[in-house]
Amino acid sequence: MSIITLTSDFGNLDYRVAAVKGSILSLNQKVNIVDISHEIQAFNLIQTSYIVRNAYKHFPKGTIHIVSVDSFHNRNRKNILYKSDGHYFLAADNGVLSLIFFDIKPEAIYEITLNNRFDDIVNFTSTDVFVPAAVHLANGGLPEVIGRKIDSAKQLLFPKPVYNESEKMIIGEVTYIDNFGNIISNINKDFFETIAKGYESFTIKFRNLALSRVFSSHTEVVLDWDRETEFHGQSAAIFNDSQLLELTIYKGSRKNGAKSLFGLNVGENIYIEFF
Amino acid sequence: MSIITLTSDFGNLDYRVAAVKGSILSLNQKVNIVDISHEIQAFNLIQTSYIVRNAYKHFPKGTIHIVSVDSFHNRNRKNILYKSDGHYFLAADNGVLSLIFFDIKPEAIYEITLNNRFDDIVNFTSTDVFVPAAVHLANGGLPEVIGRKIDSAKQLLFPKPVYNESEKMIIGEVTYIDNFGNIISNINKDFFETIAKGYESFTIKFRNLALSRVFSSHTEVVLDWDRETEFHGQSAAIFNDSQLLELTIYKGSRKNGAKSLFGLNVGENIYIEFF
Amino acid sequence: MSIITLTSDFGNLDYRVAAVKGSILSLNQKVNIVDISHEIQAFNLIQTSYIVRNAYKHFPKGTIHIVSVDSFHNRNRKNILYKSDGHYFLAADNGVLSLIFFDIKPEAIYEITLNNRFDDIVNFTSTDVFVPAAVHLANGGLPEVIGRKIDSAKQLLFPKPVYNESEKMIIGEVTYIDNFGNIISNINKDFFETIAKGYESFTIKFRNLALSRVFSSHTEVVLDWDRETEFHGQSAAIFNDSQLLELTIYKGSRKNGAKSLFGLNVGENIYIEFF
Repeated sequence: MSIITLTSDFGNLDYRVAAVKGSILSLNQKVNIVDISHEIQAFNLIQTSYIVRNAYKHFPKGTIHIVSVDSFHNRNRKNILYKSDGHYFLAADNGVLSLIFFDIKPEAIYEITLNNRFDDIVNFTSTDVFVPAAVHLANGGLPEVIGRKIDSAKQLLFPKPVYNESEKMIIGEVTYIDNFGNIISNINKDFFETIAKGYESFTIKFRNLALSRVFSSHTEVVLDWDRETEFHGQSAAIFNDSQLLELTIYKGSRKNGAKSLFGLNVGENIYIEFF
Repeated sequence: MSIITLTSDFGNLDYRVAAVKGSILSLNQKVNIVDISHEIQAFNLIQTSYIVRNAYKHFPKGTIHIVSVDSFHNRNRKNILYKSDGHYFLAADNGVLSLIFFDIKPEAIYEITLNNRFDDIVNFTSTDVFVPAAVHLANGGLPEVIGRKIDSAKQLLFPKPVYNESEKMIIGEVTYIDNFGNIISNINKDFFETIAKGYESFTIKFRNLALSRVFSSHTEVVLDWDRETEFHGQSAAIFNDSQLLELTIYKGSRKNGAKSLFGLNVGENIYIEFF
Repeated sequence: MSIITLTSDFGNLDYRVAAVKGSILSLNQKVNIVDISHEIQAFNLIQTSYIVRNAYKHFPKGTIHIVSVDSFHNRNRKNILYKSDGHYFLAADNGVLSLIFFDIKPEAIYEITLNNRFDDIVNFTSTDVFVPAAVHLANGGLPEVIGRKIDSAKQLLFPKPVYNESEKMIIGEVTYIDNFGNIISNINKDFFETIAKGYESFTIKFRNLALSRVFSSHTEVVLDWDRETEFHGQSAAIFNDSQLLELTIYKGSRKNGAKSLFGLNVGENIYIEFF
């Protein structure tokens, strides 16, 4: 039984997610449909890439992922099929897949030719282009039948952290805030370590807080497991599963939702000063 | 494998949606359960009808749709099974199905007799009446076994747009706001065209805005595809998939949720003046 | 086909729910995965217990329930498998299962030994411990293979209602507010009846309201079904499915979400005075 995952900015109120699921089941009732997220902020490709990148790896190879964010029908824009890391991804050629796979070279890229760019057929790209293409793959069909191999797709780049040598400082920014309010930045471990090895110590600064250590997991924050409760509420910086600098408060969140820890917002700067 | 869809105002926090799914799987583990929406505003039958009407068409014929909005057990009210457009619908006899199918004659209507209106059995209508009826149908059972054919069900009418001949004006209203903030009105294409053919031109007025053209799809808003980005932020009126007048801003929404475009609210008037 | 349900405080935006589903499907693609709720307030074990307790009963015996609330990896805390009422539950040993089954003795409790408490393996408890344990059970595996039988698990108690004899008063509190704004208290029917039998009458007091009757279901609120609409908006106290005192307004809610009826908040007191 093939798996098709869905990611979109459709929200969970509207009929759109169900329209996509109904369209898949109308073509093949044996497909296993799994939601990744439908609560993505409209048109937010950076948020999309963070969520899909961290979710897709847990699915079996061969899974087909439909990414319906900024996929509005556009006659001058391709829709693409991207094979990467053994998974299939269907999206508009808006650069979102280059954000998801910024560090992985795709195995193949196809322009979807099935129904694509025909204004009289395509009204809602997800049901009219992505779904028939996804079901074709789910049925074991070859990519070549529904697409034309191309060499590259649109490239987008994350806002990159900057190293200011005269100030001895990395300037990064908040790119994502998760459900627990954890702050994910664009400062990755490799970049940090390359610079850090020239110095003895460092201080991570944001708002009026400063941290001078980065843990390698949430668990490491607890320095003494026999006194675990004493670490509740402890502010900490960690390199998370995505090897990105994350600011967290150990068991600090008692509320859900958009409430960010430390009051930080997406786009706000985070500084690392070296000594 | 039969498909049962679920629509409700239960929300996604509570145990109620899971109770319905568990009840279905307790009777038949091979059913494919698909959520349409559970975030419908409590008791809002117009919102329900808009969402279900636009979702159900994408599912295969024979799909069974449970519509649990305003389905509180009521000893003096029937629960009904409605066969229409090749699909089955289960709902309280509150008129919601007449809103969904305002323009389609049902193939058959049944009063559900299974467990129905027995106060000592029925506590939660969805699990106690709709689920066993739906699973009976999913198993290939006949409607006649669980219901009694009836001639008609409760009729509700949408608030209708009005044509004021002396003012040469259609007065309609906002009936739904989707996840992107698009404004859906109750003015349908047929009604508009019948009146418009007596005039040369028209202006759609709402708040302090005026539009003098209706496009036939979101895509048509882009008058020149080589300059597509210039149309971002363009206000436009279109007749949408439901043939209803919709006010939109091409790629205008950067936020999700209840945030309405143009600041319009449900129930607010939209005017079309003819010249 | 085995059923695995998921309950968490992960929210529906993040990648975490999809990561759990992908991990299950990577091990066994034939499992039927059903969401109970992912919108639980972070770390809220009382809310979790109310939702899971009311949902699990509707699933077939043998269903496996993963309860990922306050399940952060903690080297000094067990993860447990709880067999109770014919169902399997996987959770951290944080007491949540003792809240769900405060009145039912578990059939068996196991400390999960599979991957458990190995800091180098376990990063995200749900995917690294609960998922392989759940799939082992879904495949018909024995609990003994993945766990070690233990005699008891952590016990938590609900905040209990108090009977003040000199004041002739029960003092309870609000423990849960559902999607319709209904107020669920910690006053259960048995406790109430034990005290009530010593008196002639009683008044339930909260905010500036008073009620002197408890119905046995929402339906009973309608004293005359031929005048059902006259009862809309009627404040009422009932003993709900969980035998807990619930304050409701018959068809009173027109809005969804956290909006509580009567303006009551979780933790606020409810009084029953006896005469």
